[in-house]
Formats: sequence, C-alpha cells, structure tokens
Amino acid sequence: MSLHDLQTLPGVTAQPDTATAQFVFNHTMLRVKDIEKSLDFYTRVLGFRLVDKRDFPEAAFSLYFLALVDPAQIPADDAERHQWMKSIPGVLELTHNHGTENDPEFAYHNGNTDPRGFGHICISVPDVRVACARFEALDVPFQKRLQDGRMNHLAFVKDPDGYWVEVIQPTELKG
Amino acid sequence: MSLHDLQTLPGVTAQPDTATAQFVFNHTMLRVKDIEKSLDFYTRVLGFRLVDKRDFPEAAFSLYFLALVDPAQIPADDAERHQWMKSIPGVLELTHNHGTENDPEFAYHNGNTDPRGFGHICISVPDVRVACARFEALDVPFQKRLQDGRMNHLAFVKDPDGYWVEVIQPTELKG
Repeated sequence: MSLHDLQTLPGVTAQPDTATAQFVFNHTMLRVKDIEKSLDFYTRVLGFRLVDKRDFPEAAFSLYFLALVDPAQIPADDAERHQWMKSIPGVLELTHNHGTENDPEFAYHNGNTDPRGFGHICISVPDVRVACARFEALDVPFQKRLQDGRMNHLAFVKDPDGYWVEVIQPTELKG
Repeated sequence: MSLHDLQTLPGVTAQPDTATAQFVFNHTMLRVKDIEKSLDFYTRVLGFRLVDKRDFPEAAFSLYFLALVDPAQIPADDAERHQWMKSIPGVLELTHNHGTENDPEFAYHNGNTDPRGFGHICISVPDVRVACARFEALDVPFQKRLQDGRMNHLAFVKDPDGYWVEVIQPTELKG
C-alpha cells in the first residue's frame, strides 16, 4: 500500500497536529521477575546499555532504563544523560518489584495467552541468520526459529520472563 | 547513579558483544480491538504517522505500523519505506484481529491488573503541562493527571483499549 493510500484509511489523521511535532515514542515498560537475569539478557545477548536506575525503597521497587545505542552516544554527565534518555526513541524500561525473584511460583504474563494484549518487542539486526545462529550458540530459548512455519524471514526468542522478542532484518533475505 | 556504576551492577555486561553493534530496538506490538479508533488516537492525538499496513486475510488479521517522526523523513518509495521502517527505533505495531470491534464483550488486557506483565508505553513531549492540557481539551481519558499522587512531573493517559501511555518531558518542570 502506498504512503498516500495509508493516509486515507478510516481513522487516520494524515497531517498530524503541529502540537505533536516534537513528540517522541520514548519507551516501553515491562515488569521482570529477576532483574539480574533480565539485565544479563538485554545487555549481554541483545547489546542494550543500562543508562539509568531509580530506586523506590519505600514501595520496594526499582526501575531500570536500557537503550540499544552506540556507547559513544551516551552522555557521561548524569544530568545530561537523564535528559538525553527521555528524548530518544527505543528505550526499554524494566520494573523490578523487589523479592519476586525469590518466589519459585512467581511469574509475569507475556500477553500471548488469555487474557491477551501486549504481544512482543522487536529487535532489528543486520543479518537475521547470523543473529539467530549466535542466539542458538548462547542457548537463548526460541519461540519460533527462522525455519518454523511460513514466515521464514523472522524469528522470535524469549527473554527470561518469557516475553517474546521478534528478530528481523530490514533487507530481504538472500537465497 | 553514575554511568560507570550502572555498568558494574550484577548481571550487566558493560561492553556489549560487537555482534550486537547494529542492533536496533525497532518496535513494540499491541493488539487492539477497534483499529479505526486506535488509528485515530495514535495519529490525531499523539501525532504518529501510519507507515505500513499488512493484511493476512486467510488468518483474519491485519498489522499496522506507526512511527512518531517528521513526515519529511518517511521515504515515499514503498520498498525504500519498508526497509527504513525496519531500521529505526520507536515504531508501534498494532495488531487487529478482524471482527473484534463488533463484539461488545470483547476487550484486551492492559497488563496492569492480574495477570500483570507489560506496563505501558511512554511519549516524551517538549512541555508536559501543555501536552496534558491539549489531551484534556481532546477528552482523552487519564489514568493519572499531573496533579494526582506524588509524581507531579508525569501523567498517564489511556488509549482506546485502555493501554497506559505515560507522558513525560525530558527537562525538569519549572515553577
């Protein structure tokens, strides 16, 4: 569908209000059971950088903000970094309610069984086959391998809480 | 907490694998009941642009991809636009299972009551007070107004499915 046709679909405002001109889709928040496992997955496996942490001891939770950026882009100055991380797209916020990691029965809901809602987050990579081979080597669990089903150009891995992480590449797969 | 201290927290890999250097946190997917209402909310109220739609008639669902970008950045050429939208951060994917909008009983789960998981998405705006006044004028429902509770620098509005959308500004509020 052409860009023009997309702007004429029912519901679509083709010329957004200028009041929204500088709006940014800054972040997505997911609750996680074991923050150490989640930080390991998002930094070691997916390459995110931890750019902020905020503790709320009286309410027994902490917030972790991660960004998938070139480390050279991250301001070292704290105040500057806090402003920067609220002004860029593609931040992931992880909420850790203290102690959930010690309860063997505790689990969050990934949204893909009833009651459904949220579906997944998605990481774009230069080469989806290379990325998936690396995930296999790192023993990352898959929800859908490239060869599963009919959509052979995309895969889904699972984070430590079972949230689905889609893996795509911008260009068409060769051969 | 300093950037250095953040990189030494348990679980954090401070120097991500070079294999992840070009990874991008591309999108977040939410299921929506009535796509026309959702497109209206995300384009008219929040300023997103619809940049792609994909139909899967045999499975009775469609995918809508929205980006909160300067319209001048969107490639007009379809192939170029498809590659571009998979290579940028901050895309929102809405999944519409056909017909849910006609079922008065049908509702998706926003993740903030049991079973919990996903929490919210967040929009960063130049001036959170101005943005919230506009949302009030547009009759957007609020989950939390600026003046509610202790966090007076942020608000939460609700999208047509009841998903929470946090509203923040990068700089400190004056006065």
